[in-house]
Amino acid sequence: MHIVAVGGSDAGISAALRAREVDPGAEVTVVVADAYPNFSICGIPYYVSGEVAHWRNLAHRSYADLEAAGMRLRLEATARKVDVAGRMVHLTGPDGAAEAMAYDQLVIGTGAVPVRPPITGLDGLGPADGVHLLHSMDDTFAIMATLEETGAGSAVIVGAGYVGLEMAEALSARGVAVTQLERLPEVLPTVDAGLGALVRAQLEGHGVTVHTGADVRSIARAAAGAPERLRVDAVTAGGEPVCVHAGLVLVVTGVRPETGLAVSAGAALGARGAISVDKAMRTGLADVYAAGDCVVTHHRLLGETYLPLGATAHKQGRVAGENAAGGRREFAGSLGTQVVKVFDQAAARTGLRDHEARQAGFDPVTVAFEADDHKAYYPGSHRIHMRFTGDRHTGRLLGAQLFGHRHAEIAKRIDIAATAIYHGMTLDEVSDLDLSYTPPLGSPWDAVQMGAQAWTRHLARQTR
Amino acid sequence: MHIVAVGGSDAGISAALRAREVDPGAEVTVVVADAYPNFSICGIPYYVSGEVAHWRNLAHRSYADLEAAGMRLRLEATARKVDVAGRMVHLTGPDGAAEAMAYDQLVIGTGAVPVRPPITGLDGLGPADGVHLLHSMDDTFAIMATLEETGAGSAVIVGAGYVGLEMAEALSARGVAVTQLERLPEVLPTVDAGLGALVRAQLEGHGVTVHTGADVRSIARAAAGAPERLRVDAVTAGGEPVCVHAGLVLVVTGVRPETGLAVSAGAALGARGAISVDKAMRTGLADVYAAGDCVVTHHRLLGETYLPLGATAHKQGRVAGENAAGGRREFAGSLGTQVVKVFDQAAARTGLRDHEARQAGFDPVTVAFEADDHKAYYPGSHRIHMRFTGDRHTGRLLGAQLFGHRHAEIAKRIDIAATAIYHGMTLDEVSDLDLSYTPPLGSPWDAVQMGAQAWTRHLARQTR
Repeated sequence: MHIVAVGGSDAGISAALRAREVDPGAEVTVVVADAYPNFSICGIPYYVSGEVAHWRNLAHRSYADLEAAGMRLRLEATARKVDVAGRMVHLTGPDGAAEAMAYDQLVIGTGAVPVRPPITGLDGLGPADGVHLLHSMDDTFAIMATLEETGAGSAVIVGAGYVGLEMAEALSARGVAVTQLERLPEVLPTVDAGLGALVRAQLEGHGVTVHTGADVRSIARAAAGAPERLRVDAVTAGGEPVCVHAGLVLVVTGVRPETGLAVSAGAALGARGAISVDKAMRTGLADVYAAGDCVVTHHRLLGETYLPLGATAHKQGRVAGENAAGGRREFAGSLGTQVVKVFDQAAARTGLRDHEARQAGFDPVTVAFEADDHKAYYPGSHRIHMRFTGDRHTGRLLGAQLFGHRHAEIAKRIDIAATAIYHGMTLDEVSDLDLSYTPPLGSPWDAVQMGAQAWTRHLARQTR
Repeated sequence: MHIVAVGGSDAGISAALRAREVDPGAEVTVVVADAYPNFSICGIPYYVSGEVAHWRNLAHRSYADLEAAGMRLRLEATARKVDVAGRMVHLTGPDGAAEAMAYDQLVIGTGAVPVRPPITGLDGLGPADGVHLLHSMDDTFAIMATLEETGAGSAVIVGAGYVGLEMAEALSARGVAVTQLERLPEVLPTVDAGLGALVRAQLEGHGVTVHTGADVRSIARAAAGAPERLRVDAVTAGGEPVCVHAGLVLVVTGVRPETGLAVSAGAALGARGAISVDKAMRTGLADVYAAGDCVVTHHRLLGETYLPLGATAHKQGRVAGENAAGGRREFAGSLGTQVVKVFDQAAARTGLRDHEARQAGFDPVTVAFEADDHKAYYPGSHRIHMRFTGDRHTGRLLGAQLFGHRHAEIAKRIDIAATAIYHGMTLDEVSDLDLSYTPPLGSPWDAVQMGAQAWTRHLARQTR
């Protein structure tokens, strides 16, 4: 039994690890496009910031760890084509030589690539000019080279999603003056604007210049005599021009699934052009699984969508690996649970926001509430800003959003909500959960229970 | 409609608040035995330590807040007897005058009183001698008087449960040299000894002298010329005598339900002598509910037991208040979820430990595991020590115990486990939960998922 995983990031490695765990006799090979298997891509901003001393520390596991788990790694090898009938992957090795690798079971984990938005000048500029996309370790090294070799003292970040925010913090930590340009009306558009405004206040409080509603039209080399070598031009929603000069431009406006290999095999595509898979991570092609940022996401509330997240890629990869090794497991579905630290604060969400729930056919009601992370009489308490979304008719909890201090247990509080949504709890039932309490770390009703109760009270007042 | 709640702590006030919420037209009276309604008894150690500047800050709500919620408070009034047939509570007011108060619905929330262990000399000594129990605000003021008036520089704490540990920290913070005596083999005997040993290391690392397996035999006034005015004598499990002199002795060895009023009404008693109630918090007597530390606890895994905890009292009181106001709600059951901060660390548990699960008829397996609270490459990560207990045959998660730094989100991580147990999840299913991830605050598989996977691997190895 030879199981081949294509992709050395979360999905591919998780599949390989799980396959070996389920069938310790299986031969497992992972084909890795670069020299950095099992690197924590999510950790890149903390290497750029200097908080992670060496890029090697970003490896979830070392090469030796991975080999000790029983997998064989083929680094700097690019899978070009899959022959499903012949059960063969055609590769190009590090020396450019073509090679055919036979498999019994194949897991495609080719991930995603950064979106390259239609900005005039972007295609003609690259790392050597100080213009960067960011997704891989090679991208990271290129950014570090720009920072270290040119001593860039200013940067424009196009995009204010998770990566954009983390990079704004990272570059600020290095002393780089950051201007952040976001096309949508508020930063972190994956949460409600009321919470996004709090994130924006964090950015601005730490010296980041933020322009929202700013549509970036062009990136160009600056004129001779300009203060910095690059010039970014945008137009605000109100039609005002914004022109920023910078030594570095980072474009981080999302990703799209990398599906070329799967398409070569004849795989069907689904939501947002991602590889169509069932909950067992089967592509529909004989003996071919796929997992991670390249595949559609089964969402517990939305059905099929595309929501590439690291934790999801780990879970999907694990399912694919288990099934490739002869197991029977289904991906239980995503809730889009996510959290981001922005300087001293954290913002998190799970499930659906109001408009998403409405689109999905629910009759949502969203209620904002604030509560302390622990009893306010004990020193160091922090306010948690919450938004709970529930269905008016069933009372079912559909989504939660939290914002508060990084020590306010925001991440694990959103996980309580995620676990409640997983089980289809109503907001009223959330009060039934037996959660822990001690004054320095909580309240007799936890903040999430208080928020859920506020939702129920709001609805009762509307009904009365 | 006149709803009377007897008891001004968690259960009574929660009942009154909920009754007013459900039926804003109801007349609600709370009979409070002292002058401190709705005080956070769990916060007392933080007032003693000096972290809470004024004892008034310990009030969950002020007198004015409570009145604004629509309840009437009768302070320093002791309920002596209930006449169920006549729907009348007989009180003694602050002036000692007897009074009869009519009710339509009654909620008994008389709480618990400290256990007075059979220690020679304890009955003859009291606060004036520097010997204290601790449960009420009056007890707190007495302790503060001993500390401030005698300048006691040393203390013996008899008992190393939650309150004992918190008071050890509180007194240490005041510069008092603390010796802690625990009868059982390890401190914090509500968690496994392996974790208790880590708690003990915290205590000792902060200068607390700890004697475990120490059976306290006598407390006495010290001889003339002794270094301190009190002398405590204990015997270790090995038969060694332990003699400690101190300026203050605090006996905190648990509580027992205060059931006198309920018994006067004819209520039946259940587990550990607590008032028997059904899940609707009905005592079986017409129009008489009871809630909080005075009643039995419906446990989701154990059935009827006695497990007095603040968060449980809030929930039970809320159920009783809702039902007294004509609602229909049942207490969903406790899992005994609890957390305690000990200096810089926190220890938490939910559900059952191995021996408890065995007694309850399960076939438990308990597996210890360690994981980081967040990716170790990001600065400030902390190790979390975990113990997961599951049923060998069904794979069901029965209990979890966690120990780690107070910033390692221990409290809310135990709540994820509590929510999983609430829903009867297997340890294998815990991996299906969509939990949040960002490197500074977590891992792609959260620590609790890694712990659950370790359990599953352990079982698979045993079976293979």
